[in-house]
Amino acid sequence: MRTTLITASDVRAIVDRVGLDAIMDENIRRIHEAFRDYDPSRVQVSVRDGFRYTYPHVGLLEMMPVRVPGGAATIKIVGYHPANPKLRDLPTILATVAVFEAESGHLAGLIDGTFLTALRTAATSAVASTHLASPRSETLGLIGCGGQSVAQLHAISRVFDLKRVLTYDLVPERAASVAARASRFCSPSLEFRSVPLPELVATADIICTQTSVGVGEGPVFEDGVTQPHLHVNAVGADLPNKFEIPLALLKRSLVVPDFPAQTALEGECQRLDPADIGPSLIEIVQNPELVAADRDRTTVFDSTGFALEDHVTAAQLFEYAREAGVGTTIEMECTSPDPFDPYGFVGRGAGGSKRTTSPNI
Amino acid sequence: MRTTLITASDVRAIVDRVGLDAIMDENIRRIHEAFRDYDPSRVQVSVRDGFRYTYPHVGLLEMMPVRVPGGAATIKIVGYHPANPKLRDLPTILATVAVFEAESGHLAGLIDGTFLTALRTAATSAVASTHLASPRSETLGLIGCGGQSVAQLHAISRVFDLKRVLTYDLVPERAASVAARASRFCSPSLEFRSVPLPELVATADIICTQTSVGVGEGPVFEDGVTQPHLHVNAVGADLPNKFEIPLALLKRSLVVPDFPAQTALEGECQRLDPADIGPSLIEIVQNPELVAADRDRTTVFDSTGFALEDHVTAAQLFEYAREAGVGTTIEMECTSPDPFDPYGFVGRGAGGSKRTTSPNI
Repeated sequence: MRTTLITASDVRAIVDRVGLDAIMDENIRRIHEAFRDYDPSRVQVSVRDGFRYTYPHVGLLEMMPVRVPGGAATIKIVGYHPANPKLRDLPTILATVAVFEAESGHLAGLIDGTFLTALRTAATSAVASTHLASPRSETLGLIGCGGQSVAQLHAISRVFDLKRVLTYDLVPERAASVAARASRFCSPSLEFRSVPLPELVATADIICTQTSVGVGEGPVFEDGVTQPHLHVNAVGADLPNKFEIPLALLKRSLVVPDFPAQTALEGECQRLDPADIGPSLIEIVQNPELVAADRDRTTVFDSTGFALEDHVTAAQLFEYAREAGVGTTIEMECTSPDPFDPYGFVGRGAGGSKRTTSPNI
Repeated sequence: MRTTLITASDVRAIVDRVGLDAIMDENIRRIHEAFRDYDPSRVQVSVRDGFRYTYPHVGLLEMMPVRVPGGAATIKIVGYHPANPKLRDLPTILATVAVFEAESGHLAGLIDGTFLTALRTAATSAVASTHLASPRSETLGLIGCGGQSVAQLHAISRVFDLKRVLTYDLVPERAASVAARASRFCSPSLEFRSVPLPELVATADIICTQTSVGVGEGPVFEDGVTQPHLHVNAVGADLPNKFEIPLALLKRSLVVPDFPAQTALEGECQRLDPADIGPSLIEIVQNPELVAADRDRTTVFDSTGFALEDHVTAAQLFEYAREAGVGTTIEMECTSPDPFDPYGFVGRGAGGSKRTTSPNI
């Protein structure tokens, strides 16, 4: 019973070999394909759940499970801890992804979920934007310039011919440093400008919001004059009562949830009546004509995360690992030659009281 | 960000060094202590949840999470696949346990959950039996003689002076082979007899049921004349409508759930009115006088599994690993020197389109 581990250095080797652009392009392609082929009668996705806390700092640790035909189950365990960068020099989002053979319970693989989450969240915004934004979008606005903003820029830049990036963050240096952090993949001709929020909102063709705004403290910008065709990817959702988008903009826009059962709990959709919510991204990918008439109006993609994205992305990275010959195999589970002997994995002499403790309860 | 792995060979090294008896004794002691100190306002335990399926075979894969003060969260992912032994030469229950720093989301450790689950399930039955069974119990009855029966026998033998073990299984050879599988830890003077079910039920002081009875196909024995002080540990529960104990015996017994919110869904308690259910095992450990008058009547411990048991047992095994100097540390999460750069973990040259794919969606 072998378990394959893909560690941080393995992911580094994969990225060095394949390249960030090729990985992102392939991830966008695969997520689009998975949405197109998604059949809820065959693929089981649960609303994420786990632990949420406010002491000593706001945070959550949640499980995102999906089971697919053929008997594989992917479970991501993801933490959102906005104090991580300041207190621990760690990213806000840390995650680990475990892949099980759901027909036996065997842990088939374990892989970092941190790069994977940034990648698939951004790739999903790219999928949404290709269906909802103007094909001629040239100006991207980034509200909240932490780690996820870099991945969002990367993904959007792969499917639109961007000319400029407008950045805004409560911490001005963070808005100013996006260009440096994006230099690994961005064309040198791409113009970066750190701008006041109203200018960003008024000018951008596509806006991505990825903030750590506090619960009940949203929205992160005011509605106002925007491009008539503005498309927003709202990706910061992770907690009930956390929201980023002004209600007025939601109400005048086509709002597209990623996972309606979940966006109703913790996405922008939690503030909307069902009648105000449009088709889901999966419905749109499966029937693009649903939004053919909405291309020129404002649209909002309400992205809370869908475990199928994790499954697809883990499978992609495991494939790269096999091709590159990286990864380690270990034997995790204590199994025995006799499946009915729970101690059959140990040596013959392991019984007996080696220590002199006794239960004494 | 180091993650400690305790693999099957590490657990083997721990058991060889510490000994099965000492591990079991210490586990019984620690679970008892954890129950005694349990404070639901500080420790969060969720009812397990996940995927259940009947095709191609009955099975489930579920998550059992617990978060304890100080910010550690233990999440066991456990599979119950009764076709495993026959189809795959694997135990019915396979599990993996992940320990997180819940304040950062970092995966601190990963350990086999298969031996751990057998161990803690049995140790918890021992805790229940010390409070509910006759202290003079000499005869243990095992109904269902798969892997868990061996661990149950081991745990009960550590806290009672057993003279004989009566075994019953639908597969007679399995009932007959318990003695051989238990020889690692059992006194040679312990008598084993494979007996008809009515004889077992009529004679035993303590019965443990650990069967893979089908959903809706219980109970696994008929009520009848029993020892007046009979105590039953019903540990086979894992699915709604799966039950092992005859309703008449439940109704005339003190029924003690491990985790009332969960036993109501998938334990023996799912067939009882709340008024017919006694205090929980944790309440009894915290107030033993609650059951002082019940020692001579029939009692049933309804054991569905409580994630705190997993947490305690994982901590115990990680301690042994540290003492023994076994285990491997790896770097799982892709973190960067700059926590706001999701790609900062890769080499400088990793950008650019190394492959000529394009999203083309």
